Amino acid sequence: MQHTAELIAVGTELLLGSIANTDAQMLSQGLSALGINVFYHTVVGDNPQRLRAAVELARSRADILITTGGLGPTCDDLTKNILAETFGKKLIYDGHSAGRIRDYFARMGRPMTDNNLQQAMLPEGCTVLDNDWGTAPGVAFEAGGVHVVMLPGPPRECRAMFEHRVVPYLSGLTDGCILSRSLRFFGIGESALEAQLRDDMNAMTNPTLAPYAKEGEVELRITARAADQDQARALIAPVEEELRARFGPLIYGADVSSLEAALLPQLRERGLTLGSAESCTGGLIAKRFTDLPEASAVFRGGVVSYTDAVKHGLLGVSQEMLDQYGAVSEPVARAMAQGARQALDCDLAVSTTGVAGPGPDGRGNPVGLVYVGLAAPDGCWVRTLQLGGIRERVRTVAASNALDMVRRWLSGLTIPSC
Amino acid sequence: MQHTAELIAVGTELLLGSIANTDAQMLSQGLSALGINVFYHTVVGDNPQRLRAAVELARSRADILITTGGLGPTCDDLTKNILAETFGKKLIYDGHSAGRIRDYFARMGRPMTDNNLQQAMLPEGCTVLDNDWGTAPGVAFEAGGVHVVMLPGPPRECRAMFEHRVVPYLSGLTDGCILSRSLRFFGIGESALEAQLRDDMNAMTNPTLAPYAKEGEVELRITARAADQDQARALIAPVEEELRARFGPLIYGADVSSLEAALLPQLRERGLTLGSAESCTGGLIAKRFTDLPEASAVFRGGVVSYTDAVKHGLLGVSQEMLDQYGAVSEPVARAMAQGARQALDCDLAVSTTGVAGPGPDGRGNPVGLVYVGLAAPDGCWVRTLQLGGIRERVRTVAASNALDMVRRWLSGLTIPSC
Repeated sequence: MQHTAELIAVGTELLLGSIANTDAQMLSQGLSALGINVFYHTVVGDNPQRLRAAVELARSRADILITTGGLGPTCDDLTKNILAETFGKKLIYDGHSAGRIRDYFARMGRPMTDNNLQQAMLPEGCTVLDNDWGTAPGVAFEAGGVHVVMLPGPPRECRAMFEHRVVPYLSGLTDGCILSRSLRFFGIGESALEAQLRDDMNAMTNPTLAPYAKEGEVELRITARAADQDQARALIAPVEEELRARFGPLIYGADVSSLEAALLPQLRERGLTLGSAESCTGGLIAKRFTDLPEASAVFRGGVVSYTDAVKHGLLGVSQEMLDQYGAVSEPVARAMAQGARQALDCDLAVSTTGVAGPGPDGRGNPVGLVYVGLAAPDGCWVRTLQLGGIRERVRTVAASNALDMVRRWLSGLTIPSC
Repeated sequence: MQHTAELIAVGTELLLGSIANTDAQMLSQGLSALGINVFYHTVVGDNPQRLRAAVELARSRADILITTGGLGPTCDDLTKNILAETFGKKLIYDGHSAGRIRDYFARMGRPMTDNNLQQAMLPEGCTVLDNDWGTAPGVAFEAGGVHVVMLPGPPRECRAMFEHRVVPYLSGLTDGCILSRSLRFFGIGESALEAQLRDDMNAMTNPTLAPYAKEGEVELRITARAADQDQARALIAPVEEELRARFGPLIYGADVSSLEAALLPQLRERGLTLGSAESCTGGLIAKRFTDLPEASAVFRGGVVSYTDAVKHGLLGVSQEMLDQYGAVSEPVARAMAQGARQALDCDLAVSTTGVAGPGPDGRGNPVGLVYVGLAAPDGCWVRTLQLGGIRERVRTVAASNALDMVRRWLSGLTIPSC
C-alpha cells in the first residue's frame, strides 16, 4: 500500500522566523527513503484553534501524520493535548516515562520542576517513543486509519528520535522495502558530478541516483525498491561497483557520515596516530575528529596557533620564516605540520594556515587563500587552496581538504601539492 | 488595521527534503518586523490540484498571501497560472518584462530558449516586481480584499526581492511595528526559568515574553507591538530592566548570538587575551571562539591535549599528578589552565578535562563528569560538572561552562569552584 504522510510543525518561533523548519527537511528525506509520499508541510504557532484546524485538514488527506514541536512544559504540551482530543484519546499517566524524566534531571544534577511531569501524560494505548536525547517522550498511535507520530522539536532530538524510533515503527507499515546506500565524494562539485551522471540518472528507474551537495562535498544516494533487503542490496551492488570503477579516487566512503569518520577506522587498523596544527581553521579539525566517540584511539592532540608566537613557541616555526614569508604561506604550512608531528609525537600531522575572512590579512592575502599541509614519515606535502564563500565555509572546506590529504596518503593516491 | 499573512512555498524539492524552506524563515522575520502576523506556512509540491487547495484555504484565513517558488520555465510557471486562475485574473503579455528577460540572457551571454518568455505573461493589472537578481519577475496584486505577492524560490533572489520590492509594497498597507529583544541566559534551564516567569508571562499582553531552549542555554524573547520603533523600545525597556534586576548574573547578553560573541568585545575593550587547553572538548572552545571574525584580536591559541603525553609535553602537567589523580581530575584541570596560560602567554586560559562518552573512562569516571578550569592573573578556579545527554551535548555544555567562567571573572561575579 502506498502511504501519504503530512508534516505539521508547531511553534510560534517558526512563524516569527527565529528558526527554519529543518525538521521538515530531515523528515522529508527520511520518509522519501522509506517510499512514503509527503504532499504537504504545515507550520502553525502555539495556538490551539489553528493547530486543531491543521490537524483536521491533515487527517482528511494523509494516513500518516507527523508533528514536531509543541511537546514539553513551556507550551503546556499543546500538541499532545490537541492531537489526543482530535483523535478521541484520553491522556493517562505513564509511570515508565515519568521515571525516565526524573532520571534525566537526576543525571543532569538539576532540580525537576513539577511541570515536567505533564510530559508523562500520554494518549491511552499509544506506543511510547523513549527519548534518550531530551525529556519529552515521543508518541505514536493509530486511530481511524491514521497513524499519528509526535516528535520533539529541537532538531538534534527530532533527528535521533526519527532514526531510532520512527523508522522502525513506520517500516512495519510499508510492504517491500526501500534501501539506500550513500557514496560520499570529495574533490568534485555537485554540478560537475551531475553533468557526468545525467544520462544515467535519467535512464535509471530502480535503483535511482540522486546527488546532494554538502559543504564542499557531494553525497550520491543509490536507492532501490525491492521485496526485501537482500534483493534491494543486489540491485544496488552493481551500480556501486560501476560508480567506483568510474570515480574511484573521488569516493571516500559509503554510508559514512564524514571524512573523519571514514579515516578513523583506517588509522586505527594500521596503528597510526594523528595530530593537527591549525591556524585559520582554529580547532575545527581537532573538534571534528574528537566528535567521533573512538577518537582517542588515534587522535593525540592539536595546537591551535592563532598567533605567530604560538606557531613559534609550540610548533617550532622559525621566526625568520614567519618574518620572511608571513604566516599564510607554503613554508609555514609545511613547518607547522612537521612541528606538530614532533611536538605531538604522532605519525601523521595536518596543518592549515590561511585567510578565513571577512577581510584580507595584513599582507594583502585574499580571503579564501589557504595552505593545508600533511607531514608523514615519508614526506611532507602542502596544497594551495583558493576557496570561495563566507568565513564558515572557508574554514569547513579547508579542514576537509586537510583530512582528504590524510585519506589520499592512506590510500596511496597522489597527494596534490602546491 | 492588523494584517495576517500566509506563506505558501511551491516545490517538490522541499517535500523531498532536498532543501529546507529558508525562504519562509526570512519572510517571517521580515513580516514580523513590519507588524504583520503570520499564522501558517504551507509547503506544496509542483502539483496544480494541491497548490489550488492550499491557495483556496489561505485566502479564506489571511489577507496577505505570499508565494515562493513555482515561477519560471522549469515548472511551467505553475504558481502564476494557478494564482491567476484562483483570483480570476487573465494573464497578459508584459513587454517591459519580456525586454528585461531578453536583456538578462544577453548580459549572461547565454542563448534564451523560448519558454523563458512565458515569464513575461503576467496577471492583468498587477504590480510588476522587477527581478534584478534572476529572470522570473515577481508579481503583486489585490483581489477581493486579499493582497497576493509571488516571489521566485531561490533564496538569494527571494531575499533581495523581499527587501527591495515587497517591503516597500507592504509598508503602504500596515500601521505600527513589532520589535523583539532577546536576552540570553546561562546557568538556568528552560523549565526552571519558565516556572519562575509563568505568572508574568500569563499576565502580560504587550510586550510578551517567550523562552526558547538552546544547547544548555535559554533565550528569552521580549516582543512589543507599537505605533513605531521608539514606542516599541519604550515598552520593552522596563521589562528588560526588571528581568535584569531579577536574574542579572544569569543574563550574559542581549541580542547577541552566543557566549563567545558576548565575551569577545569585553575582552578586547580591556585588552585581555585568551587561550584554551582542551581535553574532552577537543578543540570545540577554540573552534567556537575562532568562528567569530574578530577572534584574532583576543584569541592567542589553544592546545588540544587528547593524551597524557600532550598534557605533560605542551602544558607542563606533571607526570606524577597525572599518575596520582588521573587526567579527569580537579588538579589536572587546574594545571592545564595554568599551563596553557604560560605556554600561550595569554591573560586568561580555560581548560576542560572529562568524560564525553559514550562510555566511562579507564578509571571508572562516569560519562558527563567534566572539570572546567580558568586561570587568571589573580587566581585559578576549577568547577566540577555532572552533565547529562550524549557526547555532543556533554562537549557543548562543557565548553559553554568554561566560557561562562570567563564571563563571570570579567563581570566580577562569584566563580563557582568545585
